[in-house]
Amino acid sequence: MKKWLLATAIATSFGAQADEGMWQPYQLPAMADELKAKGLEIDAKSISKLTEFPMNAVISLGGCTASFVSPKGLVVTNHHCAYGSIQYNSTPEKNLLRDGFLAKNFAEELPATPGSRVYVTEEVTNVTDKVKQGLDNKQGDAFYKGVEAAEKSLVAQCEKEDGYRCQVYSFHGGLEYYLVKQLEIRDVRLVYNPAASVGKYGGDVDNWMWPRHTGDFSFYRAYVNKNGKPADFSKDNVPYEPKSFLKVSAKGVKEGDFVMVAGYPGRTNRYRTGNEVENQFEWSYPQGKELRERFIEIIKETAPEGSDERIKYESLIAGLANYAKNFTSMIEFYGKSTMLEDKRTLEAKLKSWIDADSSRKAQYGEVLAQLDKLVAQSQADQQRDIILGYLGYTTMLPTARELYRLANEKALPDMEREPGFQERDMIRFKAGMERIDRRYAASVDKALVFEMLKRYAALPKSERLPALDKYFGIGNKLDEAKLKKTLDKMYKNTKLDNKDVRLAWMDKSVADFKASKDPMIQFAVAFYDTGMQLEQKKKELAGELMKVRPQYMEAIIAYNREQGKPVYADANSSLRVTVGHVKGYSPKDGLYAVPFTRLEGIVQKDTGVEPFDAPKKELELIKTKQYGDFYFKDIDSVPVNFLSTLDTTGGNSGSPTLNGRAELVGLLFDGVYESIIGDWNYDDNINRSIQVDSRYMLWVMKYLDNADNLLQEMEIVK
Amino acid sequence: MKKWLLATAIATSFGAQADEGMWQPYQLPAMADELKAKGLEIDAKSISKLTEFPMNAVISLGGCTASFVSPKGLVVTNHHCAYGSIQYNSTPEKNLLRDGFLAKNFAEELPATPGSRVYVTEEVTNVTDKVKQGLDNKQGDAFYKGVEAAEKSLVAQCEKEDGYRCQVYSFHGGLEYYLVKQLEIRDVRLVYNPAASVGKYGGDVDNWMWPRHTGDFSFYRAYVNKNGKPADFSKDNVPYEPKSFLKVSAKGVKEGDFVMVAGYPGRTNRYRTGNEVENQFEWSYPQGKELRERFIEIIKETAPEGSDERIKYESLIAGLANYAKNFTSMIEFYGKSTMLEDKRTLEAKLKSWIDADSSRKAQYGEVLAQLDKLVAQSQADQQRDIILGYLGYTTMLPTARELYRLANEKALPDMEREPGFQERDMIRFKAGMERIDRRYAASVDKALVFEMLKRYAALPKSERLPALDKYFGIGNKLDEAKLKKTLDKMYKNTKLDNKDVRLAWMDKSVADFKASKDPMIQFAVAFYDTGMQLEQKKKELAGELMKVRPQYMEAIIAYNREQGKPVYADANSSLRVTVGHVKGYSPKDGLYAVPFTRLEGIVQKDTGVEPFDAPKKELELIKTKQYGDFYFKDIDSVPVNFLSTLDTTGGNSGSPTLNGRAELVGLLFDGVYESIIGDWNYDDNINRSIQVDSRYMLWVMKYLDNADNLLQEMEIVK
Repeated sequence: MKKWLLATAIATSFGAQADEGMWQPYQLPAMADELKAKGLEIDAKSISKLTEFPMNAVISLGGCTASFVSPKGLVVTNHHCAYGSIQYNSTPEKNLLRDGFLAKNFAEELPATPGSRVYVTEEVTNVTDKVKQGLDNKQGDAFYKGVEAAEKSLVAQCEKEDGYRCQVYSFHGGLEYYLVKQLEIRDVRLVYNPAASVGKYGGDVDNWMWPRHTGDFSFYRAYVNKNGKPADFSKDNVPYEPKSFLKVSAKGVKEGDFVMVAGYPGRTNRYRTGNEVENQFEWSYPQGKELRERFIEIIKETAPEGSDERIKYESLIAGLANYAKNFTSMIEFYGKSTMLEDKRTLEAKLKSWIDADSSRKAQYGEVLAQLDKLVAQSQADQQRDIILGYLGYTTMLPTARELYRLANEKALPDMEREPGFQERDMIRFKAGMERIDRRYAASVDKALVFEMLKRYAALPKSERLPALDKYFGIGNKLDEAKLKKTLDKMYKNTKLDNKDVRLAWMDKSVADFKASKDPMIQFAVAFYDTGMQLEQKKKELAGELMKVRPQYMEAIIAYNREQGKPVYADANSSLRVTVGHVKGYSPKDGLYAVPFTRLEGIVQKDTGVEPFDAPKKELELIKTKQYGDFYFKDIDSVPVNFLSTLDTTGGNSGSPTLNGRAELVGLLFDGVYESIIGDWNYDDNINRSIQVDSRYMLWVMKYLDNADNLLQEMEIVK
Repeated sequence: MKKWLLATAIATSFGAQADEGMWQPYQLPAMADELKAKGLEIDAKSISKLTEFPMNAVISLGGCTASFVSPKGLVVTNHHCAYGSIQYNSTPEKNLLRDGFLAKNFAEELPATPGSRVYVTEEVTNVTDKVKQGLDNKQGDAFYKGVEAAEKSLVAQCEKEDGYRCQVYSFHGGLEYYLVKQLEIRDVRLVYNPAASVGKYGGDVDNWMWPRHTGDFSFYRAYVNKNGKPADFSKDNVPYEPKSFLKVSAKGVKEGDFVMVAGYPGRTNRYRTGNEVENQFEWSYPQGKELRERFIEIIKETAPEGSDERIKYESLIAGLANYAKNFTSMIEFYGKSTMLEDKRTLEAKLKSWIDADSSRKAQYGEVLAQLDKLVAQSQADQQRDIILGYLGYTTMLPTARELYRLANEKALPDMEREPGFQERDMIRFKAGMERIDRRYAASVDKALVFEMLKRYAALPKSERLPALDKYFGIGNKLDEAKLKKTLDKMYKNTKLDNKDVRLAWMDKSVADFKASKDPMIQFAVAFYDTGMQLEQKKKELAGELMKVRPQYMEAIIAYNREQGKPVYADANSSLRVTVGHVKGYSPKDGLYAVPFTRLEGIVQKDTGVEPFDAPKKELELIKTKQYGDFYFKDIDSVPVNFLSTLDTTGGNSGSPTLNGRAELVGLLFDGVYESIIGDWNYDDNINRSIQVDSRYMLWVMKYLDNADNLLQEMEIVK
């Protein structure tokens, strides 16, 4: 109960950073007065209840957020969140991605890409005591394993109820643990998506950029069996009837209006130490950027534009480029900021504050030094770790290792297996093994592995791993020709490029693997012990961190409370609520980003060439000023996208942006370039989220795509 | 007198484009009410008088504008206008360009680059009747030559008074002619310039861009002999005492304030026909852009970075790139605009209006058709003309031709010579011949000529010129190797790369040229008749245009008058006044350019690498918020640059921007990228001029460069 009190006490004080904070729903009632003052019209308590409106209308797709917008399970999310399903249903003859898609009735709806899920969070329970029970005297690996065992047990217990997926989330680096129980709907169907020239307008060029003109929305529908329970796809399934759904606003918001977002932000790092910040921005991001850019170069060289291989790697290139751009922004704005100085100052103040009180000193006096020591340990082998990490972006070697690990794990009782290798994980595991065919080309994979092994071979001997050296014949001087030959042979002789072969290996024993002549399998076997030792060492350290970091966070929270600063946990993919306002910002001196873009901006940007190739019909509608019902006087047009101060990050994509009455006024889909570093440091002046305006969504649906059936199904507030 | 009435009547009506217009000073008194309403506090009449304050404080440097800011002839202009003089006085040991320069007293002031002039406009006289006298029945070339002869005679008469330079300017394509008489001060000295890292901050990257943070100002001083008359440089000369000078405002302007600029805008094209617009934007600009980019490529290939040759061509590269960027903007914004449609609509309306009245129809009924016909004729050979035109950017062939032309012209009485070859032009001519040494490398020149001759050779035979074909052995199929050999020989054997040789040729006879064995001279002789024929044909057409365009302009002016639209002549390098306001704009949907940049923007942009390498001392002053006397509350800093709606173009550079009391509040130095097309079409929404704020200039002088002597000399309004 102590934790509850703590959070409650803190939540009532707002500092200067008024719109910062990714709140756990339970924190909201204590903030009721502030929320009301900011513009919330519904009862703050209602937002804290997961089984009531509006929170039970907000759902997770796993990686993206979405919401129910009709009593018949209609789901709205971002176009980029439904992208895989749109692509999956597209053929050269019937290109839904290019041309858009609209099911005119239930029967026309199409199955989403395999593995698609809708998760409805139904319960969040503080299980801190249960997780930590009996672990007080455990250290390192033992502590880590103790936490893991407790989590697995809680999850297993929770998942006994059919149709549910459960997970334990750690908050504040292990200060608190919450068990989250989600209804897992397995029959998800594609209902409607605009053409890519609307839904992805601006493409990668505009990614993370303002001004923005992207119609980043699409619709799914959740289906269940006739008993209302989750079930695999079946023609007999019926639309899921959610307990509540969001109304969609045709009036939208204006500058300065209150907005809030409920969603599943992935990860932030706002409470890291100065040493962690320094290493991340001065080592990890620059290294990561360089490696990503090199990967992209190699892929482009090996798989020329237009080749079949290239098509298979477009998605990897996009992912690599996305974060290369992200890291570039991180590095740029870190260089311009005083973030590290500020962290150091904060730590010095924290230390003085701790030292100023004998009981605090007794409790926290050594914590920062301990944490620094552990952090330094975790960075000791980072030159090697990053190479092994990026080897993980290749396909064949990791696949072989995963399969062999599975064989080893399967020898254990289910509850003792590593997470990811339990029975509950097998559907995803299999889907991963199947997916490889569409994303793998031996030529590219080999070139990437060659590059990473070259870099590995350049490490000092003390950092290298005997098993890896031995398998690839790496000595103090690399024989590149020989390495190439080894790899040629491996890729020529492996059978793991065959889906059936991979799936067959899922059921084989350790002995089968040891007897195999497949060179990839042989590598996995040869490297297994080393891999496990490395993992063991990491868990040892992780266990220590899971003990020390919560103490550090406890000190920080207590200190912040005294300073009147808001305290919330870093994002961890669990359900959060953030509140803010519709507001522009100054991206640089002399320029101001206004909070709304207009239809006319689409015409202004349009070149007729992807990604600036809006549909002719849309351009015509704009040129003839067919604003219809969605005209917004303040900007003399229909608003396309808008900016808000909402504190969000990756994983929030698709989140409904709500007004004070919890009506859907937009869909969050991006943040601005200047606020990428916000994952480490929220700055009220430049942290801005980008939303599709609900008026643009409705305008496209009504005038461009004639989605009248959906407009009728939804409840639209005029 | 009719013209005066016309202009007067028109000037009193302002349409929607309230800040459009480059006014001749005489037009201003008739606009007094409007000017007062806009914010002018001094008497409009006073601005119309060239010999009174403030107009007699505004001077021309030939290509740039400047102004007197002290009773001792202190002149302020742009850093980029004084650039040549700063460079001229710089050595590797004493690099004034890099480090800045401040003369602490008169004795320390340095001579400006040879040929530097200060022109003080003293009289502007309408000489239309004198120019056109007796030409009513002349056609084509005869008309052209008649105008030319009248102009030369007026100029000769005017320049009889020692120390004056005179010129006849044509307005509205020949509707009116004005004789301008300017005092020509020949002893100009460099007084003060900030370091390039202030004066050229942002360099070519920021050229034509907003946000801007350039301290684009420098100081000259005008010197005369002891009798107060213009004289060549002499130690005995004394500072010129102008009849008046501008006070410099330390208070500056705020958003919305009235501003005006007096200066010498070079050229605009606001009254061109639809066909001219279409050809310019759809043919000339794209062709020019391509040729400029190709020239730059060739220079860079031939003269690699770091080579001596490259240094000689940096200035040509900069000039080529500057206008390649200009043309790119022209093409881009033309593509987005409805300019051509609007022109066509205007012409259709004009035609209806003319046809609606029988006397108008009699007077103007055929004018547009006639003009269109002449324009079409002038475009007939443009594919060849543009090639010959860009050959003019090379050095040796044009130099030989210029010298031979001079020999031919010298055979005529001075008054009968082609302008540019008269005795009054010889100082400039010689300076041009001398300058070549610093801007010429045979390897580059040859490569450029080769490229242009290749393009020339690809023209249809009907477009080619027999004399040129013959000299270079160009037939229907080009023998590139042979052409290369010819050029190699020409460049190897010419002596024109020697300055003394060039200067010696200035005094030789036609016979000397004909007898010369120098291959460049031989080319000039061989091509002379053809060149003269082409020129003759052009003059023929120009004479016709000089008769027809004024009639067209007369119709346009009368029509515009009826529409209540302001009428002013296109810019022609003569003195104009333009009025406007301090105002931001939206460069694209979703963004707003605010009207002021702040000191902090310099730190934000600074990379430490040129052109974003502000002096350390400046960065320190900013970081510690040393705003001193020049703090501007509205932006919580010292303003660096500001935007205004002022209607300006190239040639206005260095113009004093004045407030309603005619105090200097800034120096105009650029326009924004979106308004480059404004030379053709002023748009109140996006036409913005960029000024250095006087507060930034004074702040740099006081706190960064300690130019206390100048601050004391000037009259600063607090």
